[in-house]
Amino acid sequence: VPDVTAGQTVADLGEFGLIAAVSERIGTAAGALVGPGDDAAVLAAGDGRVVATTDVLVEGVHFRRDWSSAYDVGRKAAAANLADIAAMGATATALLVGLVVPGELPVAWALALAEGLRDEAARVGAAVVGGDTVSGGDLAGLAPVLRSGARPGDLVVLAGRTGVSAAGLGLLRSGVHDGPLVQAHLRPCPPYALGPLLARAGASAMCDVSDGLVADLGHLARASRVRVELNSALLDLTDISLDDALRGGEDHALVATIAANAARPEGCRVIGQVVAGEPAVTVDGAVTIGGWEHFS
Amino acid sequence: VPDVTAGQTVADLGEFGLIAAVSERIGTAAGALVGPGDDAAVLAAGDGRVVATTDVLVEGVHFRRDWSSAYDVGRKAAAANLADIAAMGATATALLVGLVVPGELPVAWALALAEGLRDEAARVGAAVVGGDTVSGGDLAGLAPVLRSGARPGDLVVLAGRTGVSAAGLGLLRSGVHDGPLVQAHLRPCPPYALGPLLARAGASAMCDVSDGLVADLGHLARASRVRVELNSALLDLTDISLDDALRGGEDHALVATIAANAARPEGCRVIGQVVAGEPAVTVDGAVTIGGWEHFS
Repeated sequence: VPDVTAGQTVADLGEFGLIAAVSERIGTAAGALVGPGDDAAVLAAGDGRVVATTDVLVEGVHFRRDWSSAYDVGRKAAAANLADIAAMGATATALLVGLVVPGELPVAWALALAEGLRDEAARVGAAVVGGDTVSGGDLAGLAPVLRSGARPGDLVVLAGRTGVSAAGLGLLRSGVHDGPLVQAHLRPCPPYALGPLLARAGASAMCDVSDGLVADLGHLARASRVRVELNSALLDLTDISLDDALRGGEDHALVATIAANAARPEGCRVIGQVVAGEPAVTVDGAVTIGGWEHFS
Repeated sequence: VPDVTAGQTVADLGEFGLIAAVSERIGTAAGALVGPGDDAAVLAAGDGRVVATTDVLVEGVHFRRDWSSAYDVGRKAAAANLADIAAMGATATALLVGLVVPGELPVAWALALAEGLRDEAARVGAAVVGGDTVSGGDLAGLAPVLRSGARPGDLVVLAGRTGVSAAGLGLLRSGVHDGPLVQAHLRPCPPYALGPLLARAGASAMCDVSDGLVADLGHLARASRVRVELNSALLDLTDISLDDALRGGEDHALVATIAANAARPEGCRVIGQVVAGEPAVTVDGAVTIGGWEHFS
């Protein structure tokens, strides 16, 4: 592994030097049958199925380098993908990273990004297994929880909060650079463990809230051909507006539907119900639309 | 699915409209347990292992829109990933696509890209199963062929040609826009089927040639702690220079090492041998280094 000196850029180090330095920082993945360094990774698929997703983060759209540290961007990029796996009811096992950077990027930035990826992945027991973004997950024998399974009579439950990332972005725009809301934007904390727990509890449908609560529930309502009725009084609006809670994206909370008589895991909040009808999302009885537009 | 009109841009259609239009163009993946449209795809992992890789193509680095059609870029992006899977000895089953485009991109361009991805994937029986690049593959019970297994006494065999993409790029730079070499640059044709066939024949090590024959064999030599001796008289130099054959990248030919007494599959050319010694690549006895630098 080449030594990295202060001020050295990615162009100075070269592609292979960068890969060697990042690999060294990330370490070896215990769960990978073949890890970084070959053409492709080989992963165990415990029950004969694998869950795979890819989410891309782009500077200026999903993050700004003057607001987010490299470590934060790594945490956020990993969280966006790991939450998709959790939203299928699966436990993530591996990340592949596709990194596109300008030549003048300091190597130290890329290494801090790698550390952020590594640490967020470690929160669920996953590891970075290669790259040139995809995360893979294990369903542990359960059926994956799709968006299309919601049934009239189910309750709508939310694990984690929505709107705090949007509120944090508003603060950053107004010049505030610290505090829990700003942190929620810079480094979202998806409630990963609740994905598999909700699956085990019998969740009928689930998705992660990337685009905003109303927008993502709209996808779920259309896929399930049901009407989703939200009650604004049931939302946690501590420090945030109702508009942010309904439309803010990038929190990666998990929203699920589940039978009213099911034993719900701790940490879930009932926020509404599923009824028969034309696919739509209502808030306090009024049909509501709209989602998240990132920065640009 | 929204109608796409001439001159409509990605910004006109919006993110969800684009996803709907692309999904419609790509079709449904027969092999996916859960395909596009949910948080993540669920794939069958036939023998309990999955092979995964990701390769990123960037405009101006890996392609130019004035030289490559959108369809060509789709073919090439899929080929770069599918060849990595073949180089492990596996058959690719699924692609996830991470697409980052400027708002002013014509929708028609994105759809033609999707068709290129679809058609290249179909060549190996794989399908696009989702996205927001990773490809996954099935090893059919065999051990994956790593870069680290080459042994002194093995022969070095090449499936496909190296240097033709580089020669085509040279022609494009000089204003030539058609012919087999230009086509080889715009739309590489990796010898996918020879990956699993070489694995079955007992290949001891294998990789795809992304960075150039000498550079990629250098990785293999270091991983296997062997010396690789190439004989330039054994290379197919039809229409290309020795320098292109040794250093040209992006052909995604497969290079493998295999015992001298093994039954080699048809379509492989012996180009050298593996000997004991300090890790290095020699050409006609002289130690050689160097690889591929893309456009920039």
